[in-house]
Amino acid sequence: MTQRVFRDLLQQRWSQGKFLCVGLDSQYDKIPAHLKTNSITADEPMITFNKAIIEATHDLVCAYKPNIAFYAAAGAAGLHALRVTIGLIHSIAPEVPIILDAKRADIGDTNVGYVVEAFHDFDADAVTVNPYFGQQALQPFLRLADRGIIVLCRTSNPGAGEFQDLPVGTNGEPLYLHVARQVHEKWNKLGNCCLVVGATAPEQMARVRAVTGEMPFLIPGIGKQGGDLAATIANGRNSRGQGMIINSSSGIIFASPGENFATAARDAAVKLHDDILIEIAKTGGMS
Amino acid sequence: MTQRVFRDLLQQRWSQGKFLCVGLDSQYDKIPAHLKTNSITADEPMITFNKAIIEATHDLVCAYKPNIAFYAAAGAAGLHALRVTIGLIHSIAPEVPIILDAKRADIGDTNVGYVVEAFHDFDADAVTVNPYFGQQALQPFLRLADRGIIVLCRTSNPGAGEFQDLPVGTNGEPLYLHVARQVHEKWNKLGNCCLVVGATAPEQMARVRAVTGEMPFLIPGIGKQGGDLAATIANGRNSRGQGMIINSSSGIIFASPGENFATAARDAAVKLHDDILIEIAKTGGMS
Repeated sequence: MTQRVFRDLLQQRWSQGKFLCVGLDSQYDKIPAHLKTNSITADEPMITFNKAIIEATHDLVCAYKPNIAFYAAAGAAGLHALRVTIGLIHSIAPEVPIILDAKRADIGDTNVGYVVEAFHDFDADAVTVNPYFGQQALQPFLRLADRGIIVLCRTSNPGAGEFQDLPVGTNGEPLYLHVARQVHEKWNKLGNCCLVVGATAPEQMARVRAVTGEMPFLIPGIGKQGGDLAATIANGRNSRGQGMIINSSSGIIFASPGENFATAARDAAVKLHDDILIEIAKTGGMS
Repeated sequence: MTQRVFRDLLQQRWSQGKFLCVGLDSQYDKIPAHLKTNSITADEPMITFNKAIIEATHDLVCAYKPNIAFYAAAGAAGLHALRVTIGLIHSIAPEVPIILDAKRADIGDTNVGYVVEAFHDFDADAVTVNPYFGQQALQPFLRLADRGIIVLCRTSNPGAGEFQDLPVGTNGEPLYLHVARQVHEKWNKLGNCCLVVGATAPEQMARVRAVTGEMPFLIPGIGKQGGDLAATIANGRNSRGQGMIINSSSGIIFASPGENFATAARDAAVKLHDDILIEIAKTGGMS
């Protein structure tokens, strides 16, 4: 068996023109009612729902991204559903990399626990991490050449600028840009780093792209959060028209609350996939 | 039943001269071998170990602080051990508040999942959170008046300064100090906020105390990490000689690898408890 390498899996999908990431934020309360009628615990409906979404969308995506918070909210049953879901992705679509969206970070030794959580207990290919502790603390993540370490840079929430936009250091560049520069110039020795850059801040995205070369961006904020796709792609694409993992969560997985939820999810995924390719073509296409 | 309020529980313990927090970082690999001989899963040894530590130390502490990373590292069995451990603290020492050290943070809605995790699934009284997303995102935590919301400010790890010490804004104060000021002046409307300030950076601690009034500090870094107790207390105490949750983890819980681990833990806890009171007395005592 060839070793799975996050960066290689991602590049293979991009080369096939796939940039869409489906966020499996499968909050129990929002799962269609008809999936819950015969279950007394949360895990079975969550698994059935995710399996149908994966089967309906896996040929369109460059990654799946479950956010662990929605599974932790359902306790042990929810985390069990997450474990099974990741196993299902490995089985149904072994060519699609899996990003565990967990925003983890702690001091050095303690991060070993989170490495085990993300990559052994849950068997993900990549994990999102918070930069606040700095590079030295995050070494247990950064030393894993085969995994993706996706560092929060400029997040998509309305109040993100409180600290991220503060001017820092001698040149007064905003904190998010300094984080991007540090990750690009110092943290990325093994070529395994990526950055989270929200679609709700296209100008900031252009500044991050300008200092990070070909680095992959995980881009939340399209859809419900209001990010603009054209501006995102114009400002987020790298020199090859690639480098983007464009996430949509509830806009796809909760496209319909009815029994047609999976076909509705596929329809929404096809639409966004097509729109992405149109916008990439407008900016000069892929190479 | 009276409602549990983190801040009140903490104040009651401080009023009794208790400032020690025992970090239940009960990594499976480090648990004494004799507790593992009859178990095939990780949870039973972790629970037996924690129960003995709690019984041996609960009269000395102002809080217990399990770090969820060490439990997540043991998968579902580890998280089960954490659930049972918190239940044991509620049963053995209902007067002692429980801090879930999880360093969580995400965008607004997603944090609801982490609120459920910390306060419903795990039944903690307080949780540690990362400030990078800003106040607006953390509202699902900040709106909980009865819980403690403990925000990372200046952490205890060697590379903490990479971002936390950067000069920011127009006055060029370091980022950690700006975080402290924002939390004190804007985030703490319900009086439920605390700050993480490491014992390894006593000068920074003095600067944080100078701008945060009576706000409680959770102080890691005493013991293995090399923080100085005298400097910590001189710089971290509030105007009443209180305001400190002084954490020690492995220095107490792993004081002995043998069958005497619980009495060794008590001895180490008594020593640190006494040292803390001596240092508080040197700085003018409690009021």
